[in-house]
Amino acid sequence: MQAAEYIGNKSFRIVEGKQVKPQADEVRLDVGFVGICGTDMHIYHGVMDQRVNPPHTIGHEISGVVAELGSNVTNLKVGDRVVVRPLDYCGDCPACNAGHSHVCHNLKFMGIDSVGAFQNSWTVKARTIHKLPDNVTLEQGALIEPLSVACHDISRSRLKAGEKAVVIGGGPIGQLVALVAKSVGADVLISEVNNERRKFSARFDIETINPLEQDLQEYVSKWSDGKGADVVFEVSGVQPAVEAMTQIAAVRGRICMVAIHSQKPPVDLFQFFWRELELVGARVYEDADFEMAIDLVASGKIDLEPFITSVSELADISSAFASMDNNPTGMKALVSCQIK
Amino acid sequence: MQAAEYIGNKSFRIVEGKQVKPQADEVRLDVGFVGICGTDMHIYHGVMDQRVNPPHTIGHEISGVVAELGSNVTNLKVGDRVVVRPLDYCGDCPACNAGHSHVCHNLKFMGIDSVGAFQNSWTVKARTIHKLPDNVTLEQGALIEPLSVACHDISRSRLKAGEKAVVIGGGPIGQLVALVAKSVGADVLISEVNNERRKFSARFDIETINPLEQDLQEYVSKWSDGKGADVVFEVSGVQPAVEAMTQIAAVRGRICMVAIHSQKPPVDLFQFFWRELELVGARVYEDADFEMAIDLVASGKIDLEPFITSVSELADISSAFASMDNNPTGMKALVSCQIK
Ligand SMILES: NC(=O)c1ccc[n+]([C@@H]2O[C@H](COP(=O)([O-])OP(=O)(O)OC[C@H]3O[C@@H](n4cnc5c(N)ncnc54)[C@H](O)[C@@H]3O)[C@@H](O)[C@H]2O)c1
Ligand SMILES: NC(=O)c1ccc[n+]([C@@H]2O[C@H](COP(=O)([O-])OP(=O)(O)OC[C@H]3O[C@@H](n4cnc5c(N)ncnc54)[C@H](O)[C@@H]3O)[C@@H](O)[C@H]2O)c1
Ligand SMILES: [Zn+2]
Ligand SMILES: [Zn+2]
Repeated sequence: MQAAEYIGNKSFRIVEGKQVKPQADEVRLDVGFVGICGTDMHIYHGVMDQRVNPPHTIGHEISGVVAELGSNVTNLKVGDRVVVRPLDYCGDCPACNAGHSHVCHNLKFMGIDSVGAFQNSWTVKARTIHKLPDNVTLEQGALIEPLSVACHDISRSRLKAGEKAVVIGGGPIGQLVALVAKSVGADVLISEVNNERRKFSARFDIETINPLEQDLQEYVSKWSDGKGADVVFEVSGVQPAVEAMTQIAAVRGRICMVAIHSQKPPVDLFQFFWRELELVGARVYEDADFEMAIDLVASGKIDLEPFITSVSELADISSAFASMDNNPTGMKALVSCQIK
Repeated sequence: MQAAEYIGNKSFRIVEGKQVKPQADEVRLDVGFVGICGTDMHIYHGVMDQRVNPPHTIGHEISGVVAELGSNVTNLKVGDRVVVRPLDYCGDCPACNAGHSHVCHNLKFMGIDSVGAFQNSWTVKARTIHKLPDNVTLEQGALIEPLSVACHDISRSRLKAGEKAVVIGGGPIGQLVALVAKSVGADVLISEVNNERRKFSARFDIETINPLEQDLQEYVSKWSDGKGADVVFEVSGVQPAVEAMTQIAAVRGRICMVAIHSQKPPVDLFQFFWRELELVGARVYEDADFEMAIDLVASGKIDLEPFITSVSELADISSAFASMDNNPTGMKALVSCQIK
């Protein structure tokens, strides 16, 4: 069997991997499709070499088929089509004890902190597995992970039907957040500077604004009859969005921080006091978010097909990464890891 | 009757006021005691002259006795001992319509944006009134307003019994927040740089730390067995507190923003994502907060007497303000506005 290894400096090599026999609580998967996400691109650029310690097999947005079961695994059978929630938590820190194992103090992110899915065969803990219904393809299955991010964001924001939500940043995550927001019955507006990405939203009938051409605060005020946005999702990671988020939120509005801000930008804390705003951080997903994501796709409420920009073979992983690097408007590149 | 007027530049004058006949939905109060708060001190220093437009009678932390009733007022009678929730809301903006009239888009703060209580007689809308039980003195009554701020902060933070709360800043508001936090069964730690204020906390058996002498993050980590604070109240208004708040909060910890930050300090948004923190703004109080505050005092759960640093006569209001100005360790100066 074959495995792709990231070897540093925007490079991968294909090596002869070996299947890992599942321990009692594990399952071995025949990998289906694996998506390339923003974090994978960061790794590709070498900025996370300290953490991933190349050579290392990455990849965590994955679908697959159960190939072999550990002796204790009773809720799965060989042939089940599945996805993986790629979180390895300790089970015994204050966060785990409080029921928030997805933000475990000792969380290992599978495919970053441990071996990932860009290979034909991947062995994982059975507790990470969610089953796919028959009508969800393995291609779509590889997008359940980012869709679960979006489901988690909606849940953290407590967005309800009839509320008005502004999504700042229409990258893959922001677009999915907008779709999930729409699916719960909210009115959604995406603020995005990139024309291609605004066009992408249009095919889902989602209203967009280019904040470089129109005044976002004024627009949101009119759009909401002077109230402001009930919920703002910050999904861009840029400073102007941090300024905008406190300007466009309603009194008691919730701002959901999805983006990863590595700087410490100035924040208008006065507005938090004055309008009783709320800022809620959201990180990855819980089991319920995976279930919700699978359900949204299985029920036809969300169509993930338009998100699939390209599908490459595992042997071509280097060019798959390179093409995403030169394609800021592409949404999701998949790598097929199926044995041919 | 007499009224004090702020005339600009740290000065008051006593003028012959006139009793204002209550309209149908109003009541006229014989004013009891009026507290001097931080905002009053700001006004005194002239930084809010644009808003208050002197000469202007200020004062909003008030107790009094009902002296005259408007024709529609049926739930009060002459002689009732009362306090005032000094908020004049429009009743027809998006915030009012959503049931959050205390953060009304057109909120007038009585005693700042309209005539206040530093006078013998004050006429206010009946809907602003809360009755005092017999066992709460009018002196304590004048502190129900700041205590209601603290009750609102606890309610916004969703603090529960058994949780660990750190209060950053042990001024009058921070001390009251700590007492209300204790009254709901939380473990409380105050972080305060001022020795006198840490001593003040000691008489309520509240643990304190001087963050200039001990490492706050390390201390909180030990104090909480590595978990961090379930709730952090930022009640200091200083930049080091904004840094500390994201460091000491637990995974999923709530940070309640009570302080008024007029600058836009850098905020560690990464931690909001990474530990799923929550920031919740809190502004003044709702009716339920006044009821809770009165109940805490009437039931003996909170003793407000130690907060009363001095009681001056209305004629001496200038020196009452001057003495608070030179007394950073004083808690609450009251002005008696009773007709002698
Ligand atoms: N919370 C989590 O667990 C989690 C999971 C995945 C990704 N993320 C983060 O979410 C963010 C979005 O991820 P992505 O993969 O969609 O990233 P992306 O970079 O593809 O998308 C960001 C979008 O913001 C747009 N943008 C830039 N400046 C803007 C502005 N001023 N106003 C409006 N839009 C603007 C860009 O054009 C781009 O389309 C990133 O910060 C990523 O790290 C968080
Ligand atoms: N949210 C509201 O509705 C509301 C209502 C009233 C007051 N406030 C605000 O609450 C804040 C506190 O009010 P107050 O009257 O108690 O003010 P205060 O100035 O008396 O108290 C602030 C305290 O913080 C302490 N402090 C300074 N630096 C510190 C540090 N690095 N670490 C810890 N403590 C430090 C000071 O010594 C002081 O005791 C102010 O910002 C005020 O404007 C808000
Ligand atoms: Zn853990
Ligand atoms: Zn209003």
